[in-house]
Formats: sequence, structure tokens, C-alpha cells
Amino acid sequence: MRRQEFEMNDQVNQEELDSFLHEMSFGFLGTVDPDGSPCVTPLNYVYHNGSLYFHGSRAGEKMSNLKKEASVTFAVAKEFAIIPSYFSDPLMACPATSYFKSVRIDGQAVVVNDLQEKAEVLEALMRKLQPEGGYKTIDARDNDYIPRLKGVSLVRIDASKVVGKFKFGQNLKSKDREALTEGLQKRGLPTDAETIELMRRYCPHHTGD
Amino acid sequence: MRRQEFEMNDQVNQEELDSFLHEMSFGFLGTVDPDGSPCVTPLNYVYHNGSLYFHGSRAGEKMSNLKKEASVTFAVAKEFAIIPSYFSDPLMACPATSYFKSVRIDGQAVVVNDLQEKAEVLEALMRKLQPEGGYKTIDARDNDYIPRLKGVSLVRIDASKVVGKFKFGQNLKSKDREALTEGLQKRGLPTDAETIELMRRYCPHHTGD
Repeated sequence: MRRQEFEMNDQVNQEELDSFLHEMSFGFLGTVDPDGSPCVTPLNYVYHNGSLYFHGSRAGEKMSNLKKEASVTFAVAKEFAIIPSYFSDPLMACPATSYFKSVRIDGQAVVVNDLQEKAEVLEALMRKLQPEGGYKTIDARDNDYIPRLKGVSLVRIDASKVVGKFKFGQNLKSKDREALTEGLQKRGLPTDAETIELMRRYCPHHTGD
Repeated sequence: MRRQEFEMNDQVNQEELDSFLHEMSFGFLGTVDPDGSPCVTPLNYVYHNGSLYFHGSRAGEKMSNLKKEASVTFAVAKEFAIIPSYFSDPLMACPATSYFKSVRIDGQAVVVNDLQEKAEVLEALMRKLQPEGGYKTIDARDNDYIPRLKGVSLVRIDASKVVGKFKFGQNLKSKDREALTEGLQKRGLPTDAETIELMRRYCPHHTGD
């Protein structure tokens, strides 16, 4: 990813960030309207060759905003577990929280006009959303696809800053970490086992894989 | 919800929008940074008495941005189904899409200082995220809670515009709608049955419940 700045909380590396962006299927594009007010749009995206791409209708509101202001941000987040207060405090509600992964990419939106790049990226999006196949490969030399490729808008975000936050109790004291791990083990919701793994992975005292 | 404007696509009513906002646990706050660039932050929220609220540390970046610019937007979205192209076209990738519910609330962010409103809203948030209880009710007259209530920032969004988009193939021709329904039935992923129900519910030719 083309970037000037890169911020992550402890223990999270580039590979894990890339893996998260590949795994998720949609995120939230932030733009500024012509009147200066913020706008947020949920979108499917693909992360390809280190850049984030999304597509849309050439006539849509999203695209007309981008022509006026190329400064955008894109946020992707997944909530893994709601942590109830009683895992660490029998009385007060305050410790209730949630554990999540989130990545925010700030940068410039660039409209892609090159048909070859368009075909390659839309093919990457298809492989992600429809890995089982069942369609003719998108190719910039295919006469069936050429008019479709011209008719769709594709946008690449050239990143200037990437901020990742993976929150899995990194700041917990050992006693509270143990209590939370035990609570998650007992609760056993679908993502609780993965949350325990991630708590171990990102624990500041973790000494290796 | 205090609003001047309300936009929904066909067939979606206020009750369904409220129900969606109550069901979801987190959304994406859009703000404008002091330098004019957009910022998007994933947050837990609660929708209470027709307003959307979120909380945070009084010292955080999120709150300092809000002091400078009270114009915000908040987006909540859930993806129900990836619709593969081959459900309606044996060759071309183009019909691939996704079906989702999304709501965007534009408005002014108002910092809530009233302890009674703070206690009521944070209690509503706890009931949503921790419905099984296991904590002492948050009460503005409780000496254990008063300093905590003073220490947390709570923000209410006073909405000027609400835009809801529930995309479930409303524009499909009957033949394609039937093919997609059949495809989803055969695939049988966890949310496919619900997606079929929503396609029926929001079908423009739907004549009753």
C-alpha cells in the first residue's frame, strides 16, 4: 500500500492487517459533501495489490462527490465479542465493552479509467465474493465485457495513512484477563473461542507464536 | 426521531427502520476533521426514545472533533446475502451483487451533560448489549455511579435527515426474482431464508403481510 504513515496498536503487523482486509467483504466510505458535511456510504470493496478499490454507477451521488473532493477515508470493522461487565466486576456496569478489529485508510480517491486495471480489479472482486466461479473471466480484451467495463466506475484509494486498531484487552491486568478468558470459555458463543485466541495473540506479555 | 426529512426506498416503514436500529449493535460515525478531511469511526450505539446516542472518553480524539464541528452522520448496515452472478446469468459476472439493509442519519451532535439523561441512555445501552443483566442498574442518584457518569461523554444525534436503503432485489423482473429465490433456497446459507423473506416483503408487487 502506498502510504506515508502507518499506525497500529501493539502486536498487530502488516500481514494481519492485509489478511483482515482480504477477509471482510464490505466497509464504510467517508467523504465530505460539497456543503462541507460528512457522508458515509457502506460498500463492497476489494483489497488488491496493496490498494483498496470500490466500484459504482458512473451516475451515482457517490461518484459526483468524489469528483469535487478526492480526500476520502474508508473504515472496515468487525465486532468479535461483547464483553459483559460481570466477567470482571460483580456490581458496576462500567467494564462492559466490546472487542473488535478495525482498520481505517485515509487517502486520495483516484478514478481508474484504464480498462486493464479495471478488468483485473473487478476480477479480483469476483474471486473474493464468488470464489466458486460460475462466470466468464473478466478480461479487458473480451468484447462482451468491454462496454460493461467502460460503463462502470472504479475508484482506487491511494493511501496516505493507515490506522489499525485491534482491541482484545491488551490493557488488562493478568487477573482480569484470566477472568475474561474463563467467562468467554463458559459462554461459548460462535466467535468466543476465536476471541480468546486473539486475546492471547495480542497480549503484551505474549512471547511468541 | 426529530427530523426534517425522511427518505426510504419503497415498502420500508418507520417501524422496520426502528427495529433494525434496535437490533444492530454498532455503526460508523462520520465527522469532518479540522483540516476538512473526512473521518469514520466504528462505535457501539443505542437508539433510545427516537434518538441515536454513543459514548466515549471525554479526552478522546472523537470528542475533540465534535466540539469543532457538530455536523455528523451515522451509518448502520448489515449485509444479508452475496448474490452470485450465475443465479440470473450463466455467463457474465455483472449481475453479482449483495443484498443489505442500511440506514444513514445526518444531523447535529449534541453533548449530553444532564446526568439523568446520561444514566437513562447508558442503562438502555446496557440492556441492549447485556440483556441478561448482572450489574447494578445505572441511576443518576447512585453515589457509586455519579462520578462515572460525570467522567463519560455521551453524545446525542439530533437528526435532520434519515436515509434508509433496504436492497432486496426490488427492481428485479419476476423471472429473475424467481431464479434468485430458487438459488438462495438451494444454497441455504444461514441468512438465505431470511433474505428470501425480505425479498418477498419488499417486492413492489407484494400485496400484504
